[in-house]
Amino acid sequence: MSGMQGIIDAVRPVDRGLEPEIVAHLNDLTKPRGSLGRIEDFALKYCLATGTARPRMGGKWIVCFAGDHGVAAEGVSAYPREVTPQMVMNMLAGGAAVSVLSRHVGAELIVVDAGVDDPLEGAQGLRRRKIRRGTGNIARGPAMTPEEAAKAIMIGVELANEARDKGVTLIGTGDMGIANTTPSSALFAAYLGCEVEDVTGRGTGIDDRTLAHKVEVIKMSLATNRKLLAGGPLNVLAALGGFEIAGICGLILGAAANRIPVVVDGFISSAGALAALMMNRAVFDYMFFSHLSEERGHKCLMENFNVRPMLDLRLRLGEGTGAALAMSLIEASVRIYNEMATFSSAGVHDRE
Amino acid sequence: MSGMQGIIDAVRPVDRGLEPEIVAHLNDLTKPRGSLGRIEDFALKYCLATGTARPRMGGKWIVCFAGDHGVAAEGVSAYPREVTPQMVMNMLAGGAAVSVLSRHVGAELIVVDAGVDDPLEGAQGLRRRKIRRGTGNIARGPAMTPEEAAKAIMIGVELANEARDKGVTLIGTGDMGIANTTPSSALFAAYLGCEVEDVTGRGTGIDDRTLAHKVEVIKMSLATNRKLLAGGPLNVLAALGGFEIAGICGLILGAAANRIPVVVDGFISSAGALAALMMNRAVFDYMFFSHLSEERGHKCLMENFNVRPMLDLRLRLGEGTGAALAMSLIEASVRIYNEMATFSSAGVHDRE
Repeated sequence: MSGMQGIIDAVRPVDRGLEPEIVAHLNDLTKPRGSLGRIEDFALKYCLATGTARPRMGGKWIVCFAGDHGVAAEGVSAYPREVTPQMVMNMLAGGAAVSVLSRHVGAELIVVDAGVDDPLEGAQGLRRRKIRRGTGNIARGPAMTPEEAAKAIMIGVELANEARDKGVTLIGTGDMGIANTTPSSALFAAYLGCEVEDVTGRGTGIDDRTLAHKVEVIKMSLATNRKLLAGGPLNVLAALGGFEIAGICGLILGAAANRIPVVVDGFISSAGALAALMMNRAVFDYMFFSHLSEERGHKCLMENFNVRPMLDLRLRLGEGTGAALAMSLIEASVRIYNEMATFSSAGVHDRE
Repeated sequence: MSGMQGIIDAVRPVDRGLEPEIVAHLNDLTKPRGSLGRIEDFALKYCLATGTARPRMGGKWIVCFAGDHGVAAEGVSAYPREVTPQMVMNMLAGGAAVSVLSRHVGAELIVVDAGVDDPLEGAQGLRRRKIRRGTGNIARGPAMTPEEAAKAIMIGVELANEARDKGVTLIGTGDMGIANTTPSSALFAAYLGCEVEDVTGRGTGIDDRTLAHKVEVIKMSLATNRKLLAGGPLNVLAALGGFEIAGICGLILGAAANRIPVVVDGFISSAGALAALMMNRAVFDYMFFSHLSEERGHKCLMENFNVRPMLDLRLRLGEGTGAALAMSLIEASVRIYNEMATFSSAGVHDRE
């Protein structure tokens, strides 16, 4: 786990000393000051994260981690477990929502098997990093050992390093895993101390009865794993998380350590982001929260960290779909910063 | 004005009979039903507007109308009037915010002089449709004659027709005109019966004293023009509007008559959209409201028509900047509709 701790420690707060130069440039662009609102905020954040007042946009990656969950056996999802490998194949074939939206925004989609309960034979282009064929059932014991969780984190870290080597300057997170809102809700409750009822939602669309059952399963998971939950953020992640959630956590840590801004997708990605934040708050400076999920509980994170998500489109799909859409806004903000004329260059009068 | 009335009458409500087929297709895509939230709503709206369950995305246009305003003489803006032609030149040279964002989303930017108080010599690529060098001062009399307003509307209609002939399938609106939040606020008050204080904001960034003065100027404009305001939507537009606002109104009417969905930018574009809605409510079926402007008063329209804007990025620039960003979301929705795999084609299990 030493590699993991090294990465956690490598994440440093951004240099706010750059802010006056960046803001001065934004104010010199041919528009009333601040009139591009949050687009200007995004440009500032991107500049600070990348550590320069002269930003450039290189390649964009969306990394979608897939994993299965032992807790699916408790009947907490509307979909059968076979859908995880089926959707992995669909993503690789270009037919999933995240495949379409990645193409739309010009991002490369990287699909990672972190722990799918299927050999995924013949899956062309898949990053094969399977740790195990699905986690343990959190209602009965821990999802992973701490060693497995650290290993899953390092999958993400190594992908962030690869992205850096390939000139990627913006990374989006994504997830695929039937039943994975259950471990995500459990992580929100454990890390933030929220009530289970407040962070448990309908996932892919369960009915009232299944929702009530899901709340009970999460409460049981917190009780069953209570000793591990006292043991720090990695142990909490190991107890309640998932291979894909740990992978997302590692991707975010690795991106931040490499000063690559990272766009957090929805509810499941936010659980991974939360784990990363608990390990080192400095990752916050590198994170864009793409959208407010329809999944109940996402607001809990936003309020805790005083975050206003970039988009509110009532998405509840995951995969990286919200991250893809948000990446286009961030790229727009960098283009505004780099391509707009200044008052002096364009011969436009500034305000009187 | 007969051509104008013909266009107004040519706008027909969409055929809701197509909705079940469109929704059935959205539900057959490999995602939980409704999990792409508003993206699915956008796809449905685009399909209904274009009158087909097999939509295609052709070219995209952002049409930015420029005009000057007599009321600028009352000292209601933070910027001098010369900025209107300077910004027109900046847009054509590619250095304005809307120039950058149009490129980002792959839209062609069309810049139209509907009534700028400058000859705009040497302006390459400008659509020269100047009606007059700026409107009359609405605080002292009408902005335009009804004939001038109808002529400005027809500029927009003819551009929509040209767009149709060139295979454009999505049109965004934009505006440039120093002082044009003042006539826009006046139109909101006159058409919707809102209090002047509730629809008057800081525009490009005026201080408290100028804001109080702006409110008085708008109240004076409503009083001065009260006889015309009783004479129907065209007379209201003529009394209080602007050449660019009337052009936007015509663009929206022409787009709707041609079944081309139209993306309404911010506060000024919404004033044009409101004029179009007052002429024929059926245009609503073709309109996407791109974003909630920071300009106070925009909410008044949204509440009146029960609209939830697509984006909330605290923009207050105009030009078509918000429309450009929203067009990318609409295109994303059409790609989702057309490019995602279905459950049967991808061999993915639907819910149990």
